[in-house]
Amino acid sequence: MAIGFSSRAFVQSVPEKIGERVLLRGWVYRLRNLATTTFVIVRDCTGEVQCVAASVRLKDVAVKLDDTVEIVGRVRSDARARLGCEVDIDELRVLNPAGHKLPFNSSSDLAEVGAEARLEYRPLAVRNEAVGDAFRVQAALLAYFREFLAARHFTEIVTSKIVVSGTEGGTHLFPIEYFDRVAYLAQSPQFYKEHGVAAFERVFETGHVYRAEPHASSRHLTEYYSLDLEMGFIDGPEDVIELERELLTHVFARLNERHAALLARHKRPPLPSLEKAPVWEFGECLDRLRRAHGTKHLHDDLDPEAERRLCALAEAEHGVAAVFVLGFPLASRPFYTAPRGSSGAAQSFDLLYGGLEITTGGQRLHAREQLETALRARGLDPESFASHLRMFELGMPPHGGLAIGLERLTAQVLGLANVRDATLYPRDRYRVTP
Amino acid sequence: MAIGFSSRAFVQSVPEKIGERVLLRGWVYRLRNLATTTFVIVRDCTGEVQCVAASVRLKDVAVKLDDTVEIVGRVRSDARARLGCEVDIDELRVLNPAGHKLPFNSSSDLAEVGAEARLEYRPLAVRNEAVGDAFRVQAALLAYFREFLAARHFTEIVTSKIVVSGTEGGTHLFPIEYFDRVAYLAQSPQFYKEHGVAAFERVFETGHVYRAEPHASSRHLTEYYSLDLEMGFIDGPEDVIELERELLTHVFARLNERHAALLARHKRPPLPSLEKAPVWEFGECLDRLRRAHGTKHLHDDLDPEAERRLCALAEAEHGVAAVFVLGFPLASRPFYTAPRGSSGAAQSFDLLYGGLEITTGGQRLHAREQLETALRARGLDPESFASHLRMFELGMPPHGGLAIGLERLTAQVLGLANVRDATLYPRDRYRVTP
Repeated sequence: MAIGFSSRAFVQSVPEKIGERVLLRGWVYRLRNLATTTFVIVRDCTGEVQCVAASVRLKDVAVKLDDTVEIVGRVRSDARARLGCEVDIDELRVLNPAGHKLPFNSSSDLAEVGAEARLEYRPLAVRNEAVGDAFRVQAALLAYFREFLAARHFTEIVTSKIVVSGTEGGTHLFPIEYFDRVAYLAQSPQFYKEHGVAAFERVFETGHVYRAEPHASSRHLTEYYSLDLEMGFIDGPEDVIELERELLTHVFARLNERHAALLARHKRPPLPSLEKAPVWEFGECLDRLRRAHGTKHLHDDLDPEAERRLCALAEAEHGVAAVFVLGFPLASRPFYTAPRGSSGAAQSFDLLYGGLEITTGGQRLHAREQLETALRARGLDPESFASHLRMFELGMPPHGGLAIGLERLTAQVLGLANVRDATLYPRDRYRVTP
Repeated sequence: MAIGFSSRAFVQSVPEKIGERVLLRGWVYRLRNLATTTFVIVRDCTGEVQCVAASVRLKDVAVKLDDTVEIVGRVRSDARARLGCEVDIDELRVLNPAGHKLPFNSSSDLAEVGAEARLEYRPLAVRNEAVGDAFRVQAALLAYFREFLAARHFTEIVTSKIVVSGTEGGTHLFPIEYFDRVAYLAQSPQFYKEHGVAAFERVFETGHVYRAEPHASSRHLTEYYSLDLEMGFIDGPEDVIELERELLTHVFARLNERHAALLARHKRPPLPSLEKAPVWEFGECLDRLRRAHGTKHLHDDLDPEAERRLCALAEAEHGVAAVFVLGFPLASRPFYTAPRGSSGAAQSFDLLYGGLEITTGGQRLHAREQLETALRARGLDPESFASHLRMFELGMPPHGGLAIGLERLTAQVLGLANVRDATLYPRDRYRVTP
């Protein structure tokens, strides 16, 4: 047979080739060297297959775990094998050997490998499904998020991450030395997605946002990936909540349908529909927490314990551990937030899911004069937001939107305790490598 | 009828509602105020429709161009109308008026509006199809790029843009004040996508890259969006070229199929298949340029004029204005580039399309010792690349990949002369707003 890239067979196609000779390329994921027979489990981007040879035939090839190899062999039906077949090795060649002194192998039990080593040797850890699946889920979340929104007339936009001011008043910004001046890393695409509404009516963006967050908690990163959307011509934040309900129900159904084996190997039940997730006013949440848990210290925001408890209450009442909390105090929300009536509440909501806040959203102010008043009320100078405020003269409809933290959503889907396990290369105050 | 977000009809659904009452929301795109009749062309994210009222009925509503409006009316069949119907207005309400002193309107002829005004009033310009279509094409390019690669077993990855060193030796970097230390904006996801190969075999990423580019030419930005992919177990750069040929042929076919009206209104012929685009060695390109144009000044790279001429030569010979140039001089390529034989050429290629370089790609070195040698040969210290080099011990297959500049590809698809017209918020040495 011709040996070359174009004739290479992916593992997933091997069961269709019983009796044929195949060329495989991949990693040695497991290796059993018995006296007479050697078993080489080869892994590529589509799966793993057991390859077999008489040990004597491989004695001159110093193959070891995690080497990259090329195997030519014949596919033999074997009812005991996971794929229903094995490959009898004719030739095995090491393409590039792994090092001799790795701290672990890709098939090691990674529960026994420290978090630091898993990060320092990221690709090796990721080759193990226990770690790598988080990133497969992440890629799937991205794909289904975009798929749903494109079908709802949203246009994907790409906006600059180099900005001259913050969207929330100028704290926690990372300065950039931009030629002869200072610029900043964008904290959010908030302004640009609002401008996007004036341009396209409905927009989304998936991209990095940056917060010079002094804490390095299990929930915080200085660089995270934000799933942002914004839409025009809404009547209120309830319309944004309804869209997110449908969006996540779609995304979760797709995951259940197309990634059932992955969810099963992480012992996760099918992901829920959010159809029955309740919408509770912020004040109502405080009442519920007081009645159920005697909580008295919360006034203008929730804390992690409250988020967990509210999800548990929602699960008990509605069968789904998710709740939209609507009407946070206006004073604790950014200047562009629309007021909810005149009692000091905001048209602003969070989605708590599985005990964690994964979304902040709401209706925004759309009249320039109201924005100027809101800025002044926060001690900010409208002049320094001039180029942003100008966009509200161009025909800005009533609008709102939301942002979902991709790492947090990924962590909740798989039940990971730390967002770092859902981030390929996490950044916090103390970490900028690898 | 109920007036609210959930009962709102998109313009594209209006032809299905002849005889019914509908609620429309959108922008006033055109307005004709005759003595007896007023015509209001309303635009939303799905299209535009003509709405009609007796002028006397609208005399108390001061409606003007680019106002956001809500209209309740009845759909009437009209064979002369573009949609085959019009809407007789029962009620028209201005939701939020546009300003009185706009420098242009969304329906203005934007060819007569200066580039600066188009940028300063971006959303208004984008609402005009002449400008906005570039971003619809861009969103489509992103969707089809991802669609093709996901079907070919590529995993989407998200990697950090905050790094401690450059991928190409440390020039043209933007420094970030990162708490108590200096970090940099990533010039390329090159290292991370190579690590991604060690993890997933095939990866792609769509994201921003940053170059502190001192020029502000029509082809250069300091922040651009890169379509990156990297794949393992290749035999050579020809395998990457073949993949890109299939990738762009797929993307272009989708554009022809699903965006025919858009391409037609920009007077663009259908996009070509790249099946017949030739692969020419770098030396052969210099020979051809010498023979056809007497070009003698090129030695280690092409220039914009050479790129245009090579595309014209490819078009004359093969019917498609595209050529893969393979085997650039190794000395002019980054340290991680694999050599092509021993004559000083690199396993490195560019794709020139429509007269412009839109891709750089190639095969990379995959053995740690070779990388160390290459670094030293360029006067770089392997110690300062330690965490990168470690990844080559983890089972790194022979690999290669490419990067396509999204703004350049968008510009070429629509025949735009400046990449700024394919960038919502362009950044260059002199521009950090809006």
